[in-house]
Amino acid sequence: MKEHLCGLNEVDAAEYISKLPKADALKAFRLLEGEQASDVFAYLDKDTGSYLMDSVTDEQLTQIVDELFVDDAVDFISEAPANLVERVLSVTDPQKRKIINSYLQYPEGSAGSIMTSELIRLNEDYTVLEALDKVRKSRIDKETVYTCYVTDAKRILTGVTYLKDLLVSDDDALVGNIMEKVSIKAKTTDDREAVAKLFDRYSVISVPVTDSEGKLVGIVSVDDAIDVLVKETTEDIEAMSGVSHSEKPYLKTGIFTLSKNRIVWLLMLMISATISGKILESYEAAFAAIPLLVTFIPMMMDTGGNAGSQTSTVIIRSMATGDIRLTDFVKVWFKELGIGTLAGFVLAVANYLRIMILHPSENEVGLVVSLSLWATVVIANSVATFLPMIATKLKQDPAVMSAPFITTIVDAFALVIYFEIAKILLTTV
Amino acid sequence: MKEHLCGLNEVDAAEYISKLPKADALKAFRLLEGEQASDVFAYLDKDTGSYLMDSVTDEQLTQIVDELFVDDAVDFISEAPANLVERVLSVTDPQKRKIINSYLQYPEGSAGSIMTSELIRLNEDYTVLEALDKVRKSRIDKETVYTCYVTDAKRILTGVTYLKDLLVSDDDALVGNIMEKVSIKAKTTDDREAVAKLFDRYSVISVPVTDSEGKLVGIVSVDDAIDVLVKETTEDIEAMSGVSHSEKPYLKTGIFTLSKNRIVWLLMLMISATISGKILESYEAAFAAIPLLVTFIPMMMDTGGNAGSQTSTVIIRSMATGDIRLTDFVKVWFKELGIGTLAGFVLAVANYLRIMILHPSENEVGLVVSLSLWATVVIANSVATFLPMIATKLKQDPAVMSAPFITTIVDAFALVIYFEIAKILLTTV
Repeated sequence: MKEHLCGLNEVDAAEYISKLPKADALKAFRLLEGEQASDVFAYLDKDTGSYLMDSVTDEQLTQIVDELFVDDAVDFISEAPANLVERVLSVTDPQKRKIINSYLQYPEGSAGSIMTSELIRLNEDYTVLEALDKVRKSRIDKETVYTCYVTDAKRILTGVTYLKDLLVSDDDALVGNIMEKVSIKAKTTDDREAVAKLFDRYSVISVPVTDSEGKLVGIVSVDDAIDVLVKETTEDIEAMSGVSHSEKPYLKTGIFTLSKNRIVWLLMLMISATISGKILESYEAAFAAIPLLVTFIPMMMDTGGNAGSQTSTVIIRSMATGDIRLTDFVKVWFKELGIGTLAGFVLAVANYLRIMILHPSENEVGLVVSLSLWATVVIANSVATFLPMIATKLKQDPAVMSAPFITTIVDAFALVIYFEIAKILLTTV
Repeated sequence: MKEHLCGLNEVDAAEYISKLPKADALKAFRLLEGEQASDVFAYLDKDTGSYLMDSVTDEQLTQIVDELFVDDAVDFISEAPANLVERVLSVTDPQKRKIINSYLQYPEGSAGSIMTSELIRLNEDYTVLEALDKVRKSRIDKETVYTCYVTDAKRILTGVTYLKDLLVSDDDALVGNIMEKVSIKAKTTDDREAVAKLFDRYSVISVPVTDSEGKLVGIVSVDDAIDVLVKETTEDIEAMSGVSHSEKPYLKTGIFTLSKNRIVWLLMLMISATISGKILESYEAAFAAIPLLVTFIPMMMDTGGNAGSQTSTVIIRSMATGDIRLTDFVKVWFKELGIGTLAGFVLAVANYLRIMILHPSENEVGLVVSLSLWATVVIANSVATFLPMIATKLKQDPAVMSAPFITTIVDAFALVIYFEIAKILLTTV
């Protein structure tokens, strides 16, 4: 039989084994060696594959997984039952597991896509001695080895215990009796950013991840959580200034990709600025009459843009760190109205003085510019409060309401306010 | 003697004890009880204080420190020798220790200011059994308990070992023989952000902190490192849009403080925008002749500002995450020149088409605007590359070269380019 199997092409061998009764399939599969075993495995039907993986020893499993191509492993793992997934991942070397995880069908950006299985799983009915032995024999070379997750007969996560507690317990005490409740956990489908934030909030070094049935399938460890926090922050920062995120570091990204990441926003914003242009066109008569009015446009636009950027930055960041929630909307808005009124007033006074020094005869223009400036800052703060909040309400990342986008909107407001006030106060316009 | 001491005011008692020979001072100090002991302690001279703290039992030490006011504790700790600092901090409850650390004279933002002493310290000549016993008896309720730092007779940090290694070693093996070299460590005076980044880079859960002589005084644990990363990032993000950092969360900060945090930059930027105003004034003749030119100013300024923000954001963030170093300056600049040329060209073409659609007869104006736009984007990218790099060169946080600041500079360039090109190409200007 061994000769027969070894002579077959792996596809044929897989088909042959898949058709055998399960006990015979196991015997047949065990006849295969090294590379061939994994090649054949890749073609087995899912049921037979799961059964075999579940039945072989850890050594054999390691061999098979080591030889398996990543995509085959991913394919298999994504359909295997939770207990098998954990076992397969636990014999995979870290680098490969990382790749496997990233390719697994867990939604991109989910907890499942960043979890690993470098964890100690204990049964509730283990004695402390058995548990300690398991830790001692574990091949895990990481601090997560000291946090032991406890599951019941159905692999449902029921508790957690720490090596320190095991060390000070009686050798024959049951793990089920000394374990603590798990209060911080995640589902494979949870957002990876939300999971990463658990680490910041609760000062833990690992968070267990369960599937939809509550079965333990892996953990997210603190180092991966930090990676996520840093990456998500970079994405936020980039989004806030209108840059699409690139996965590779700056120096390894080509000029073409880097340009592409920026040009979409630049184009969109440039075209939106047409609105400001159109508004200005409609006031041509005004600045033809008093050309001095034009010279304050940059200052007005920049200040409105700056005030808006400041507000949106503070709000977006506060939402990211959890200091502000959507329900705080009214409170935040009132606060920003206050800040806009106060800061706008100071700016308006400073600006009026500046104009009086540079153009002593232009009292009225100074008044128009300063009043408009004040109104612009108040409106900028409101716009910059509304947009990120609306984005959040629509389940979007508030950071997409980038400062450049807000600036463009504020510009339009600023120009209308400026020239309307000018029309009212200046008789020559 | 007890009666005498108890009858004395604590200042007098302290003076009395300080003058006794050390052995007698210890006897006298032990006669004091609870609150009085710590009150007296606060007034002892440093030498006597250190000697007494070093001589009393852990219980007594705990009592004294518990009763001591934070500032007194800080005062004492900041001048005590390293071994005593560690001992005092180890008997202090976590919350108080946090406060003590924050008040210690370690420079603000240093590793010393964020370290704790929830660590297991082993002597090189401990046996594994003794080491395990120390871990077992430790009151530390944190994962850092599993990482044991080893010091020599002079408290110099010499190695590290992990509970897992202890568990699989012979009971009578010496810690000095099974320990590993410490490759990742920090000094109390190191920048806390640099230390926090070690956690991201090396996936560790604690970093030992030594004083200038290499003596172990504490550890930074991963949860504090995450706090630092989040805080420093918030500061960076805020700096990038010209907001001064406030320690308290948004909703707990008053309108006045929030306004103050923003108004300085707004004022500075507003006043800098005077330059743009002055530039515009000098071209009054040009836009009096062709008012249409004015309508493109917002678009030109916004696009330049946006391109600059994008560049500075990417560069500042890449420097923060370590993807770009100062030595990459030339490489980065060439890349940004490429991006500016490419993105600017696309924008210029799009803009020319837009103008041709809206103003079919204004071919020359379209050409002027598009050429200026192109040049503006290239210059914006250069300015936004130079400034953060220069800030870094001057040992400043590159984030201080905020997008608003860059925008203000780019605006001035944009206006000059625009009107100079207009003067050359448009015969009526």
